[in-house]
Amino acid sequence: MLYIGVDLGGTGIKAGLVNEKGKILAKGSMLTHAERPYQAIIADIAALCNKVAAEGGVKVSDVAAVGVGVPGICDPKTGIIPMCTNLGWHGVPFVQEMRKYIDRPVIVDNDATVAGLAEAVAGVSAGSQTSVFITLGTGVGGGIIINGRPFSGAHGVGSEIGHMIVKMDGELCTCGNRGCFERYASATAIIREARIAVAAHPESAIMARCGGNPEKINAKIVIDCAKEADPVAKRVFDEYVKGLAYGIVSIINILDPEIIVLGGGVSNAGKFLLDSVREEVEKLVFIKAMPHALIELARLGSDAGIIGAAMLGR
Amino acid sequence: MLYIGVDLGGTGIKAGLVNEKGKILAKGSMLTHAERPYQAIIADIAALCNKVAAEGGVKVSDVAAVGVGVPGICDPKTGIIPMCTNLGWHGVPFVQEMRKYIDRPVIVDNDATVAGLAEAVAGVSAGSQTSVFITLGTGVGGGIIINGRPFSGAHGVGSEIGHMIVKMDGELCTCGNRGCFERYASATAIIREARIAVAAHPESAIMARCGGNPEKINAKIVIDCAKEADPVAKRVFDEYVKGLAYGIVSIINILDPEIIVLGGGVSNAGKFLLDSVREEVEKLVFIKAMPHALIELARLGSDAGIIGAAMLGR
Repeated sequence: MLYIGVDLGGTGIKAGLVNEKGKILAKGSMLTHAERPYQAIIADIAALCNKVAAEGGVKVSDVAAVGVGVPGICDPKTGIIPMCTNLGWHGVPFVQEMRKYIDRPVIVDNDATVAGLAEAVAGVSAGSQTSVFITLGTGVGGGIIINGRPFSGAHGVGSEIGHMIVKMDGELCTCGNRGCFERYASATAIIREARIAVAAHPESAIMARCGGNPEKINAKIVIDCAKEADPVAKRVFDEYVKGLAYGIVSIINILDPEIIVLGGGVSNAGKFLLDSVREEVEKLVFIKAMPHALIELARLGSDAGIIGAAMLGR
Repeated sequence: MLYIGVDLGGTGIKAGLVNEKGKILAKGSMLTHAERPYQAIIADIAALCNKVAAEGGVKVSDVAAVGVGVPGICDPKTGIIPMCTNLGWHGVPFVQEMRKYIDRPVIVDNDATVAGLAEAVAGVSAGSQTSVFITLGTGVGGGIIINGRPFSGAHGVGSEIGHMIVKMDGELCTCGNRGCFERYASATAIIREARIAVAAHPESAIMARCGGNPEKINAKIVIDCAKEADPVAKRVFDEYVKGLAYGIVSIINILDPEIIVLGGGVSNAGKFLLDSVREEVEKLVFIKAMPHALIELARLGSDAGIIGAAMLGR
């Protein structure tokens, strides 16, 4: 059985022909040009689906389904996208519009959910029934897999792990609340805290690495300095790991998954991050007598969006 | 089809013969005498099952299954109870021991999970597929129902909603962590904050109601005073509602259930609590354009334990 997966982003769109094991057989990409009306973008997505099918030696009518990962809120039941900030979409009838061009089932879901599904089929969490994927990027996204299927809740707005509140009356979040997990576990959190830290400690290696301009600090700079034992960077990193661990422990206490997968830009810190997070989580786990979720790094990288979207149709 | 449900508590044990709709056809109870070896308690539970079956005009061998709700950690897969503080149990092979007396499937799960299942079958959340039950008592327990089935995670330790961290570096919890949801949403939290408040404001109606002895403050006294607009009690109550609402919003953002059911002692505050919680949650909901979980009070009261335990076998 074959599937098409589409990874829809604000800048680019990628699509691939994928087999039932999550292997990409053909792929293609295009620029989104998000300023266009949604109808034009969706027409191009359909054309890209035809193209990757042809490259794989089949027609779109031969595939079981077309899945699409969207960087926003999706309602998998109606196929409507109520909100997608990167594309400026509100209430776009995505599936209905796609079906004008494609006579196969079209399934949409959130991009973090899709990435989590990809890992659960063909990545680090393959073989598990229950897993939680956490993307550590500008914000924090979440994908919940239960019984091998993506779980987005009753109204399609679940798995917004980044907006779990971990610190009442804490940092103000873009969502309007205070103390959301993403205020402590995103790359943005590392940058914010590093800027505060270098203001008090301009001797930090972070300052040299950003050319003396705190506006140029990014998460990689801070983590690289922490790896090299710069004390200021290490303190920022340790606080970050603590915030991340608190959120992970809450997820363990609520969902008790088999595995928690860390993806997104910050996860490129690799073993340095993983070892620290595991150590901190171990301290905080509630029921120490019982086994708890493994914590691992995502493996599929930039192909996760295509693979997971395709697997929505399985 | 008939089922037996057992509600195992530290003080008493209740059992009932229940039909597939969650209706109790016969019931009985006994004292636990928790100081006895677990083998003696389990032998008595089996005898109580025989008794309620007979009262319902059947034999235990006629029922489809026996379900048991336990006030502790259960491993539904192995039937072992790794930890049950009220009974002083550690690693009790509950199902294996029960099967010495009962030749039907025996299923164990956590008591809050069981109460949530009861409401989802025969109570306020009947007909829903996805619901979350929160018991607001001395601590805070949780029951998660997904696709109509109790969800306890991969290792049986999920749905410990009371130990979701809502305030990093907050109040110390009995679990050893700081800032757990139950530190803010339990009856214990109301009592703690009321004692602090009356120390500064002895003119509060709370002091009169507890005979001038803050040690005698309970959640009902504080809520009754808040209902009567005592300003000190109202502030304590409002803070409590805020903490509860933060946890509920986190659950909505993660699990997006159809309905969240509030049970346990504090939920006896009724409409006064419910209206306040709904108002606070409405302010905090992330995606205001989308519908979110209904919030309701539990309806089954003290029978929930028997009904839900029986429904484990469905």
